[in-house]
Amino acid sequence: MNDDRIEKLLRQVREGDCGVDDALREIKRMNPDPLGFACLDHHRNLRTGIPEVVFAENKSAEQICSIFASMLERPGVVMATRVTKEKGESICHKFPEAMYHEEARMIVARQLGGEISKNKPLVGILSAGTSDVQVAEEARVTAVNLGCRVEAAYDVGVAGIHRLYSRHELLSEAAVLVVVAGMEGALPSVVAGLVEAPVIAVPTSVGYGTGFGGIAALLGMLNSCAPGMAVVNIDNGFGAGCMASQIVRVAERQG
Amino acid sequence: MNDDRIEKLLRQVREGDCGVDDALREIKRMNPDPLGFACLDHHRNLRTGIPEVVFAENKSAEQICSIFASMLERPGVVMATRVTKEKGESICHKFPEAMYHEEARMIVARQLGGEISKNKPLVGILSAGTSDVQVAEEARVTAVNLGCRVEAAYDVGVAGIHRLYSRHELLSEAAVLVVVAGMEGALPSVVAGLVEAPVIAVPTSVGYGTGFGGIAALLGMLNSCAPGMAVVNIDNGFGAGCMASQIVRVAERQG
Amino acid sequence: MNDDRIEKLLRQVREGDCGVDDALREIKRMNPDPLGFACLDHHRNLRTGIPEVVFAENKSAEQICSIFASMLERPGVVMATRVTKEKGESICHKFPEAMYHEEARMIVARQLGGEISKNKPLVGILSAGTSDVQVAEEARVTAVNLGCRVEAAYDVGVAGIHRLYSRHELLSEAAVLVVVAGMEGALPSVVAGLVEAPVIAVPTSVGYGTGFGGIAALLGMLNSCAPGMAVVNIDNGFGAGCMASQIVRVAERQG
Amino acid sequence: MNDDRIEKLLRQVREGDCGVDDALREIKRMNPDPLGFACLDHHRNLRTGIPEVVFAENKSAEQICSIFASMLERPGVVMATRVTKEKGESICHKFPEAMYHEEARMIVARQLGGEISKNKPLVGILSAGTSDVQVAEEARVTAVNLGCRVEAAYDVGVAGIHRLYSRHELLSEAAVLVVVAGMEGALPSVVAGLVEAPVIAVPTSVGYGTGFGGIAALLGMLNSCAPGMAVVNIDNGFGAGCMASQIVRVAERQG
Amino acid sequence: MNDDRIEKLLRQVREGDCGVDDALREIKRMNPDPLGFACLDHHRNLRTGIPEVVFAENKSAEQICSIFASMLERPGVVMATRVTKEKGESICHKFPEAMYHEEARMIVARQLGGEISKNKPLVGILSAGTSDVQVAEEARVTAVNLGCRVEAAYDVGVAGIHRLYSRHELLSEAAVLVVVAGMEGALPSVVAGLVEAPVIAVPTSVGYGTGFGGIAALLGMLNSCAPGMAVVNIDNGFGAGCMASQIVRVAERQG
Amino acid sequence: MNDDRIEKLLRQVREGDCGVDDALREIKRMNPDPLGFACLDHHRNLRTGIPEVVFAENKSAEQICSIFASMLERPGVVMATRVTKEKGESICHKFPEAMYHEEARMIVARQLGGEISKNKPLVGILSAGTSDVQVAEEARVTAVNLGCRVEAAYDVGVAGIHRLYSRHELLSEAAVLVVVAGMEGALPSVVAGLVEAPVIAVPTSVGYGTGFGGIAALLGMLNSCAPGMAVVNIDNGFGAGCMASQIVRVAERQG
Amino acid sequence: MNDDRIEKLLRQVREGDCGVDDALREIKRMNPDPLGFACLDHHRNLRTGIPEVVFAENKSAEQICSIFASMLERPGVVMATRVTKEKGESICHKFPEAMYHEEARMIVARQLGGEISKNKPLVGILSAGTSDVQVAEEARVTAVNLGCRVEAAYDVGVAGIHRLYSRHELLSEAAVLVVVAGMEGALPSVVAGLVEAPVIAVPTSVGYGTGFGGIAALLGMLNSCAPGMAVVNIDNGFGAGCMASQIVRVAERQG
Amino acid sequence: MNDDRIEKLLRQVREGDCGVDDALREIKRMNPDPLGFACLDHHRNLRTGIPEVVFAENKSAEQICSIFASMLERPGVVMATRVTKEKGESICHKFPEAMYHEEARMIVARQLGGEISKNKPLVGILSAGTSDVQVAEEARVTAVNLGCRVEAAYDVGVAGIHRLYSRHELLSEAAVLVVVAGMEGALPSVVAGLVEAPVIAVPTSVGYGTGFGGIAALLGMLNSCAPGMAVVNIDNGFGAGCMASQIVRVAERQG
Repeated sequence: MNDDRIEKLLRQVREGDCGVDDALREIKRMNPDPLGFACLDHHRNLRTGIPEVVFAENKSAEQICSIFASMLERPGVVMATRVTKEKGESICHKFPEAMYHEEARMIVARQLGGEISKNKPLVGILSAGTSDVQVAEEARVTAVNLGCRVEAAYDVGVAGIHRLYSRHELLSEAAVLVVVAGMEGALPSVVAGLVEAPVIAVPTSVGYGTGFGGIAALLGMLNSCAPGMAVVNIDNGFGAGCMASQIVRVAERQG
Repeated sequence: MNDDRIEKLLRQVREGDCGVDDALREIKRMNPDPLGFACLDHHRNLRTGIPEVVFAENKSAEQICSIFASMLERPGVVMATRVTKEKGESICHKFPEAMYHEEARMIVARQLGGEISKNKPLVGILSAGTSDVQVAEEARVTAVNLGCRVEAAYDVGVAGIHRLYSRHELLSEAAVLVVVAGMEGALPSVVAGLVEAPVIAVPTSVGYGTGFGGIAALLGMLNSCAPGMAVVNIDNGFGAGCMASQIVRVAERQG
Repeated sequence: MNDDRIEKLLRQVREGDCGVDDALREIKRMNPDPLGFACLDHHRNLRTGIPEVVFAENKSAEQICSIFASMLERPGVVMATRVTKEKGESICHKFPEAMYHEEARMIVARQLGGEISKNKPLVGILSAGTSDVQVAEEARVTAVNLGCRVEAAYDVGVAGIHRLYSRHELLSEAAVLVVVAGMEGALPSVVAGLVEAPVIAVPTSVGYGTGFGGIAALLGMLNSCAPGMAVVNIDNGFGAGCMASQIVRVAERQG
Repeated sequence: MNDDRIEKLLRQVREGDCGVDDALREIKRMNPDPLGFACLDHHRNLRTGIPEVVFAENKSAEQICSIFASMLERPGVVMATRVTKEKGESICHKFPEAMYHEEARMIVARQLGGEISKNKPLVGILSAGTSDVQVAEEARVTAVNLGCRVEAAYDVGVAGIHRLYSRHELLSEAAVLVVVAGMEGALPSVVAGLVEAPVIAVPTSVGYGTGFGGIAALLGMLNSCAPGMAVVNIDNGFGAGCMASQIVRVAERQG
Repeated sequence: MNDDRIEKLLRQVREGDCGVDDALREIKRMNPDPLGFACLDHHRNLRTGIPEVVFAENKSAEQICSIFASMLERPGVVMATRVTKEKGESICHKFPEAMYHEEARMIVARQLGGEISKNKPLVGILSAGTSDVQVAEEARVTAVNLGCRVEAAYDVGVAGIHRLYSRHELLSEAAVLVVVAGMEGALPSVVAGLVEAPVIAVPTSVGYGTGFGGIAALLGMLNSCAPGMAVVNIDNGFGAGCMASQIVRVAERQG
Repeated sequence: MNDDRIEKLLRQVREGDCGVDDALREIKRMNPDPLGFACLDHHRNLRTGIPEVVFAENKSAEQICSIFASMLERPGVVMATRVTKEKGESICHKFPEAMYHEEARMIVARQLGGEISKNKPLVGILSAGTSDVQVAEEARVTAVNLGCRVEAAYDVGVAGIHRLYSRHELLSEAAVLVVVAGMEGALPSVVAGLVEAPVIAVPTSVGYGTGFGGIAALLGMLNSCAPGMAVVNIDNGFGAGCMASQIVRVAERQG
Repeated sequence: MNDDRIEKLLRQVREGDCGVDDALREIKRMNPDPLGFACLDHHRNLRTGIPEVVFAENKSAEQICSIFASMLERPGVVMATRVTKEKGESICHKFPEAMYHEEARMIVARQLGGEISKNKPLVGILSAGTSDVQVAEEARVTAVNLGCRVEAAYDVGVAGIHRLYSRHELLSEAAVLVVVAGMEGALPSVVAGLVEAPVIAVPTSVGYGTGFGGIAALLGMLNSCAPGMAVVNIDNGFGAGCMASQIVRVAERQG
Repeated sequence: MNDDRIEKLLRQVREGDCGVDDALREIKRMNPDPLGFACLDHHRNLRTGIPEVVFAENKSAEQICSIFASMLERPGVVMATRVTKEKGESICHKFPEAMYHEEARMIVARQLGGEISKNKPLVGILSAGTSDVQVAEEARVTAVNLGCRVEAAYDVGVAGIHRLYSRHELLSEAAVLVVVAGMEGALPSVVAGLVEAPVIAVPTSVGYGTGFGGIAALLGMLNSCAPGMAVVNIDNGFGAGCMASQIVRVAERQG
């Protein structure tokens, strides 16, 4: 720890074992990390409880295992996203505390559990179609393991708008809503027009032709007339889950 | 007219003034127009009553005037689209039977008028915002002058969905709906999910940033989950008015 | 059913068992569904006969089977689009009333059949090339099972325009035309220039290089000079079939 | 008001002046607005205090004045965005309670004022360059007039990262951060990596060449590795201000 | 043949078996094909000797075989492009007169052969890299089988410009040059700056990253400062071969 | 002139005034220009008669004048493209031998004139709409001043295909066709399907919305199914005129 | 200066006026700037002599003047890029030491001058056309004022490749080359294939149609087969000048 | 060799066996290669030591082997890039002097080895994430085999900026830095803001959704506010390694 080095230096200065000029020079030569922002960055991980997360898409099961082994030496939840079923099973086989969430394509080790207080602000997660559930589940599993109280309602897209209306209570109660949609991506706009909670819109790559792998949905969301909405990358359920948990944390710190 | 030439030839054949071989060769050498499809094309204009229309964007007032002069020698409505106010006024000054529609940016000469029977199928025209009215008016003036019964409702976009709901009767009665929207272009999808009439969606270039001059709206419409909807070019109110009038004509021929 | 709840409430009001204020509050708190538009949406499905349709692309055979099982409990035609041959066969194996249309890549259960009156408006379906037939067949099977009278002519693209001319009668008789084309997508423009029927243009992803998976064809169609034409998403034969059937319905309601 | 109609109907039922069946039919025929979600939508505006906002870009000073006149008949703040200086001055000339914010290009009438409690969660607004200030000011004026406590720090982009570091306290204290950047749009990523507050990233159209009017910045933000961040449309300071105020409201409701 | 019908009609008119009016009506009702342009189209195929060509990409070996069988009933060369080795071998197995060109990925049946006069204008075909040879070979085999005298030089790209210079004589002698290049697509510009022959530029999809599957090469070619050059679709060796043969034919008709 | 230097060196070698080794070294050190390809480039200009051409878009009238002054010191036609009317008049004022072609936006000095032999191969130039005439005229004036026999037919687009058919003789006689079209750009495909002459397709930026300033037309042309066609840059009438003249030259050298 | 604060603190510790714990806490609370990397950043500016540069595009003359006033209080060259002639003159009017470079659109104050040693590595700057000179001049003025020895050769594009060859000596001598080109952007590739110096390629927005404001040139450069070349943003002459000067500095530090 | 031909000619001139005019004509007719730039090009390869490199992506193991065989007949290092493991092993099996670098996906034959002097300028190679290592390794192996002293630091992206800070010494010592990053591509900007060495930025295709296979990273790098940075193609580690080695060579020639 650099703190120790500075402390030691200060003591030497006090004892007269080190001149002021030498001490100044020494401090300036130090790795700036312990004094500067990089350090803050480290503290922030501890404070916010956002676990480190492995983006597994381009990694082999072996690589993920070795990262997991090292991460599990430290306390806290450990997560990996975009894990295929095959990789997931082979990893869980090695780490008994790890669990594979197939729909979310995630592995979570030292998963959060226990009762969640009804007083916590609620994160609502909606998906437009059944094909969007994978991304919505990534958001849900992420938020749950970041300590959020979460409730989800899937397949409530605008094509059958009565399905959305029947989730009236969830819409009213949620402190923040993650709304996942592909194709034309209209659901977040409609929801943002109905509720007072901030809406995190997640475009998905579901669709074909001019859907352009989620671009049509993304543009629809970015150009929405409904205020109170912001957007994450296509298929980025994980990012939406993080954003939701950080909004909830704002409320909890205030509460 | 080629008809005359063929008739004359046939008479010559009948009179023996022209051999069969010569006549056959002559017919094959003729401009195919009067016998073939190009001819159909001409007849169709007369039959369907779709007047010739001048796309005025890249033409000077003088050019438009000279085209109008020639078109007004033939019977029927004459229209020009994308006419600036300045050009419009200078043209109407020369042609007393021409009228400039400022919002639609159109000139119509020998405008259709008189009572329109309540039995005609109704063309409904909706616009999402007040900024989309220009395009919606182009569709309206076009459809009216193609002989349609038209009713319009503007500024009924999804941001204040109660405004749409308050036009309940128009939505129910319309045989075909032209729905005009910029930004995320969600209104046509919502409308197509509510009504049984075919919906012609018109994206507009209203918006900014990733609206990309109407592309976001266009993509939203092309990727809509709601069936019973088709799309025309960005800002193409004229095309939507034509399509609507042709759908109405299908019904009238059947009725 | 909410009708029952309102009726009961009205009776209580009449009997004096419930005050007017309480009844008013109760009505406003109700799920808006039975009174509002969502309800319309439901009725509309029944009225228009558009069956629910499964978009099978991202679903397993098992998932489709379970959706089919639930849909077949209700009356009416059941359709699935974008079904691979393998999935199609495994599903049809379980549901004897289901039939797989290989070219259209669709499953239809409780397929419409019987004689179709010659008085019905005719839906004409054209494809430019043999590679576009898959999409054209999706439009055809959709329209047929929405109750339309349909006639198709494939491989009549502009490269050999005499092939189009030889389908002269179909072009003349059709009340509405679905025109399917890839590559430069010129066929719908040519057809729309020849006929008075409204044309629904369907770009396909057939082509290579700057065809960009159907974008060249889409742009060609959106920018066509020929009025009386509107466009659906790339490869969206299903949407074109729906739009065609809704245009036909306009005529039938009028007739 | 529909409430009156229903109440009157209920009274008639109570009085026996109207049968239950007739009343039921009447209620179902009503404009669904007062009972359904559209109504909620209206209440939400009152509750959340988000004033109606005029997007002035395509509107003349006259049009804006007439909208303002009508909006000022109702209580609450009235705002217009994207107002040029010229339009702004002509409008403020007519409405003494309106004030033009030149940098933000906004008009605010019945502007919020008075002391803002230090206990309110703080909205921090950062801009990367001085050219981004216009958009940042739009976010600031919006958030302030939605009742937020706001503090801004401009020109703290990554090129001179010590400028960002010198705003250490603002970064630590803010409950939510709006970060505005053009060119490569890296500032929001760097900030999101440093703080625990949720970050709303706003790409601006500042730049040239492959900046593509803000697309490079937008893509940079959407693809950021830093979690806890979501994005609004290019140059959409207003949307970011709304999203920030809604996140703050989550905290206030909880507090 | 329609000729027969018209001739018969003319005879009937001559014999008085058919009135002039009836004959006129009959002629107008005829399929316009034999009299109009579609007919020309047919004759043109015979005259120009451009054989019909099968685009094999989306077709099965069975489909291609059945098309080949029908085409081989008529005289003339028969070609198919974009044929995989597997399909090619299975097709050649059935048609002894068919030959598979592996590099060109083409099948040619009734291949042109024999001596080609040295007096014919020369078609030169150049490729920038060895990876572009496939497309260059498609152009070569096409041109050869359209009766052209062809000479090719591959791997003469600008990276080693001495390789181009060493093909000095080919550059000087060629009446028309097909120049095939991927990556930045600079070779056609350089060649067009050196020779007086018209240059047909063929971008290929060779490359990676911002090569965008041939778009970088295409744009390079379209924006070339060198006059006397035109471009075909990405990877369209066949189209370049046809264009070259038609330019040669202009010369031969003149000669 | 380098020729002189080499000749002098050779004489010195002959006279024994310079050793062979020294002469060899000297020749290798020379500017490669007079011996190599750059030289060819220069000769080619003389041979082919393609005059140097000024692209005037980003140049002031003064700059163009000074370039013209220098170019007019050498023999041959001098041309400038993309000259606004204002610049054109100010330049022609200074150079009596220069003439401004308003529609083509070109200046030509020492314009070619006199009778053109009917035996020369004919360059046909077609434009789809009147808005495309500017680009077509650039092609026409270019080709004429490169010594071609040219005949043009404007406003013959596919919307009124009988207009194209009425130019039957031009289509038949032309040795090469330049076909100019905006919007969906279908005309070159249709023409290439009708004639045996090679077709040079020129997309124009005429259109709006998804025409994308000529991209829709360009893509339509690149993806055409009709062989015997190649494409130049959007609005590049000059390039098409050059390509046409070089194709004609192939024929003339052969003839 | 933070150095003073730390030094003072160290003295207090030595004197016993401040405890070690208090000093440690104080140091950690300090603005991390003077100790960390931000500091390095500051030192680097002094060391490398890269002056601060104002991007003037979106700033008024007044804003630029006030920034200049503040910058001129510190030593060293001061530059502004993208300054219009009008702004440039008004600024130079106020600051006698400032000079406006019209072609480069730059203002330089305290411009570097005097003899530059012939021993310095040479920066060569080439432009393809005269229209590219503006961007090339921005690179040149930048490099000169960063202390480089610079030589430029303009209008040496590939269309007249002998012009490039005639600059043989510049190509051979340059330690680093900045090559500026619009349209198809081929010049940097050709140069990189000829020289051993690293090439910095600068695409310009010169061109039209599919030049897409410099994208065609950019893609051409990114996809070049010639190694030893890297690219900066479209029209970014300033960035190229900086990169060149930093490469030269590598050599100077080594020398 | 042409040298011999010229020498022989000179001798004949000296001997009077050949007239000066004939010799002059002969020299001008010669292949310009040995006298002109193409020749320079050849010498440059020898001088700079850049070995020829095979782009293996579209080549079979057999093709690569035959190219290798021919290249190994000449002296110097031989490299191939984009070699799959399978191809790599089969090739190394045939050439004992070849070695496969799995992470770099390269084969190097006659690999450079031995001690590298500490006095050589250092090439630093950084990667943002572990997924970018493949591209970074391609740069590293390339630079090493071009004779550079190289040191690499991987996984030092901005998400954990302390990791970058901990590589303080490498950042300070490097004469040139290659910085490899995918996703939003912010690392090169941050590094260029910290160091005085020129930075070569390499975008990678790592990411998903709007990462668009490296375009987001590329745009981020091209639009960076940090001067002293230039960019190569997406995933082009080889190009970056070459550029780095040529910058180092500038220094070495100077040193």
